[in-house]
Amino acid sequence: MNRKATRDQIIETADRLIYQKGFEYTSFADMADAVGISRGNVTFHFKTRDEILKAVIDLRLERTQQMLAQWEADGEGCEDRIKSFINILVMNRGKILLYGCPVGTLCTELAKLEHSALPHANKVFGLFRHWLSREFSLLGHKAEADALAMHLLAWSQGIATLANAFHDENFIHKEVRHLHDWLQSLAADYRGRRDTRSTSKVTKGKRKHGRLFLNNSSNTI
Amino acid sequence: MNRKATRDQIIETADRLIYQKGFEYTSFADMADAVGISRGNVTFHFKTRDEILKAVIDLRLERTQQMLAQWEADGEGCEDRIKSFINILVMNRGKILLYGCPVGTLCTELAKLEHSALPHANKVFGLFRHWLSREFSLLGHKAEADALAMHLLAWSQGIATLANAFHDENFIHKEVRHLHDWLQSLAADYRGRRDTRSTSKVTKGKRKHGRLFLNNSSNTI
Repeated sequence: MNRKATRDQIIETADRLIYQKGFEYTSFADMADAVGISRGNVTFHFKTRDEILKAVIDLRLERTQQMLAQWEADGEGCEDRIKSFINILVMNRGKILLYGCPVGTLCTELAKLEHSALPHANKVFGLFRHWLSREFSLLGHKAEADALAMHLLAWSQGIATLANAFHDENFIHKEVRHLHDWLQSLAADYRGRRDTRSTSKVTKGKRKHGRLFLNNSSNTI
Repeated sequence: MNRKATRDQIIETADRLIYQKGFEYTSFADMADAVGISRGNVTFHFKTRDEILKAVIDLRLERTQQMLAQWEADGEGCEDRIKSFINILVMNRGKILLYGCPVGTLCTELAKLEHSALPHANKVFGLFRHWLSREFSLLGHKAEADALAMHLLAWSQGIATLANAFHDENFIHKEVRHLHDWLQSLAADYRGRRDTRSTSKVTKGKRKHGRLFLNNSSNTI
């Protein structure tokens, strides 16, 4: 491998190991073994584990941005795009059951460590928050867009934590159905308001839509 | 200190350190320093860190049971008792901002470690799940009681994770208000059904209450 390829492979491997085992459990030796190079070759590229951590977070930020751009390209409307976010819980369920969410679990670990990289790691949450917030604005919930983005992020994190703790795949599917119902009700609420506005003169700001943090469900949970 | 007092103090200290720093970061030396005894004195009581971990989880299980019993004694009705659970987010917000939730973060760490103590640690979640499930049954949602308990546990976990990552106390307060609204709507839904049953013959099982996973909110989030 050339120098750049080796460096990239160390970062890829560290990304996986940090997710699977946690940052503190991922040693230089683990990374060297997993890549199939000497420990000295790892330290040639990265003097400290903190340097590797920074490179891993940079990689995650880059990939998150690419993923969001892809959702932008694929999603026909904001409801579809928010669905793309929700569906990563199902797409990644195998890994979530074993290791939780990569974003949340790293932030949690770094917070306990009082590690200086926490604000950097938290930028991944920040990307999702900002992106979701814009999508909720487009869905007609401008004033509450950021609160809805945070609510959805928290809900998803909670699903990942409980699914991981109880190793319960079915729980992910059930909660994702509730997330879809909730999203649908937010979209319906907006459409309802838009239709009302087009047929009558409802004063903006006076209307009480009143059910923003809602998750409809039928009797079959 | 006598032998039992020293042992208890090691467990108390390990409980705090494991919460604040994580299990892997908590060494025998850390525990000895924090208690103010020699490392040898710690290993006299506990041969391995896993033995200390087990004792810490036992302590947490015992305290959780005591707390639930206290809520039983204090809460006038099931709605009040579920409120006691929700309010621990506010009561413990200082620690949550710094270290997340003690239950969730330990389970997450042990899952990544593939540690054999995970099922034991998970029993703390199990206690809350079982207790909340019974309370939701009493609140008239028998068929969905376990799903509602898991939903509330997940929601609370997500709030803790995001509040910790963003170090945002205000987020805890906002989401707790939504939790209270949600609980109130579940209680109102039950009262509504009960009143309907007492005045007309609605066939049980045919009614669609339809808004179980709901969180009412006004325009001011």
